[in-house]
Amino acid sequence: MKLAKLLGVDLPIVQAPMAGVQGSRLAIAVSGAGALGSLPCAMLSAAAIADEIHAIRAATERPFNLNFFCHAQPRFDAARDARWRESLAAAHAEFGIDTATIGAGAARNPFDAAGAEIIESLRPPVVSFHFGLPEAELLARVKASGAIVMASATTVAEARWLEARGADVVIAQGLEAGGHRGHFLSMDITEQLGLFALLPQVVAAVKLPVVAAGGIADAAGVRAALALGAAGVQVGTAFLRTPEADTSALHRAALASDAARHTALTNLFTGRPARGIVNRFLREHGPMSELAPEFPLATAASGPLRAAAEKQGSADFSSLWSGQNPAGARPVPAAEIVRGLAAGLEA
Amino acid sequence: MKLAKLLGVDLPIVQAPMAGVQGSRLAIAVSGAGALGSLPCAMLSAAAIADEIHAIRAATERPFNLNFFCHAQPRFDAARDARWRESLAAAHAEFGIDTATIGAGAARNPFDAAGAEIIESLRPPVVSFHFGLPEAELLARVKASGAIVMASATTVAEARWLEARGADVVIAQGLEAGGHRGHFLSMDITEQLGLFALLPQVVAAVKLPVVAAGGIADAAGVRAALALGAAGVQVGTAFLRTPEADTSALHRAALASDAARHTALTNLFTGRPARGIVNRFLREHGPMSELAPEFPLATAASGPLRAAAEKQGSADFSSLWSGQNPAGARPVPAAEIVRGLAAGLEA
Repeated sequence: MKLAKLLGVDLPIVQAPMAGVQGSRLAIAVSGAGALGSLPCAMLSAAAIADEIHAIRAATERPFNLNFFCHAQPRFDAARDARWRESLAAAHAEFGIDTATIGAGAARNPFDAAGAEIIESLRPPVVSFHFGLPEAELLARVKASGAIVMASATTVAEARWLEARGADVVIAQGLEAGGHRGHFLSMDITEQLGLFALLPQVVAAVKLPVVAAGGIADAAGVRAALALGAAGVQVGTAFLRTPEADTSALHRAALASDAARHTALTNLFTGRPARGIVNRFLREHGPMSELAPEFPLATAASGPLRAAAEKQGSADFSSLWSGQNPAGARPVPAAEIVRGLAAGLEA
Repeated sequence: MKLAKLLGVDLPIVQAPMAGVQGSRLAIAVSGAGALGSLPCAMLSAAAIADEIHAIRAATERPFNLNFFCHAQPRFDAARDARWRESLAAAHAEFGIDTATIGAGAARNPFDAAGAEIIESLRPPVVSFHFGLPEAELLARVKASGAIVMASATTVAEARWLEARGADVVIAQGLEAGGHRGHFLSMDITEQLGLFALLPQVVAAVKLPVVAAGGIADAAGVRAALALGAAGVQVGTAFLRTPEADTSALHRAALASDAARHTALTNLFTGRPARGIVNRFLREHGPMSELAPEFPLATAASGPLRAAAEKQGSADFSSLWSGQNPAGARPVPAAEIVRGLAAGLEA
């Protein structure tokens, strides 16, 4: 339980940060139950992040994790954007959306100086990064704040890269995982590994504690991850149907349905491969598309489609993020999910 | 250890049948070590299968497994074949191969009446199938012979299908696995699951014993598979560098190199997705290609290329089958690989 000590928690279980479907409520419930709750910050303003941190601290004295994205902000490519919009024009028309006039999409901001300032002033105990690490100067500020730094690796090469640059904990993200894949050294998704293959190879390659992510849904999954050398686990999908998550009713219904048996990596929603339940959007336009602009610019044209369809009660164009094992996603309080997972920590 | 009893072996460890890279020698070594050795039959004539069975029986009294493919034999499509040959013409020219005159490729025969006759007369203790099951009448003959029937599932739906049709054991093949994927209900490879997600869902869906396959390389992998509910494991890649395998020197060298860190599913060699180490052929023509004819017809044009390149000492066009975790493939006797895996069976 060295990892638990390092993170300051009772249980080496990390609630995966899930931007767009959860905020401080879930983090509070998970941290309160003895695991590490996470606050996804990629879609929040600096002020909103500060508010959420205050909310967490008002509710619990236990440690929590702030999560940031570390992608390079892409340059807007008008021609590519036009092709993307055009490819969605028929779907837009079906929902009365004027393709030509829709604006920019929801922002996903990479970690920057403002983020570093928040960390320096509010001192979250743990900070995790997805899509690599911030530039050296910013990372040094995070580490100087005293925060434990975790980051995602999807290959052995990425794990070694993170260790060499000063991460304290490596999260080995198997391709079973829901939501955005964290790869950053190569965009070739054939390099992505199942957790059974990734985890032991990462454990052998780095000295840092390794947190296993992807497909872990219950105590048995925790036991298996520990058997393969993990120091702890990160679990996301299993929390999506808890009352403390902000998951939409349509998303909850999809997770509870047979449709959840088929997920795929898709770049249609944001421009980066992320795992979600296959729906009409993925079937008709993907799941991967060469037309989708770079992350996060694809959102501009896909977001309004999602919103319009959802207004009509349809999840046909929604990002129904889910890992490949939705069996653990039960409609029970997050603390109960934590307890179920924790049973796998006992020898 | 109910599975071991069912199979008549000491250890619930199955050596994955690997057509083209092993024969009776490996099966004998593995069965002799207390696990279940397998003889891949898809590329053997009836007479050759009988010879191999006699060789196994002359060497050991222990149980062994005969493996067959159950694909539908495709109809030859001259136009598609021509497009495929044309796409490889430049590579052919580089090796002095006349694209127009190359003949049919190596056969991969689906299980048929001749196979059933062999089983009826030679009574192998275990028979396993890949790509589904034979038609009902043939399967009934196999079962009537007294053979235990195992078959591969890559999805929950396939596992249920196998159970409903009379399989005795389900092999849950995670997408980490090397060689041909066993999917048969859907050709959509986005439906394929990592073992961490597939195994517990298959275990929950069927009453049959489940053998875990894909990415299992050592005792830790065995422990993890058991933790997720497996009754046993099937391991292939870990045996590829043993002296009892017929793996080529080029293939052995690739497995021992850093190149083995990047495998991909490719249909370039046979027409069906199979996992192998990424080499020039996969980079330039795939890894997946819509031009490749249906399994096994793609072999006709890719086989000569492989042979010609290998003659020059190059593995650029070789099918370097490997799972996503080559760490277990050590150049030691097969019995030592078995002993290493068996350590994971101890509580």
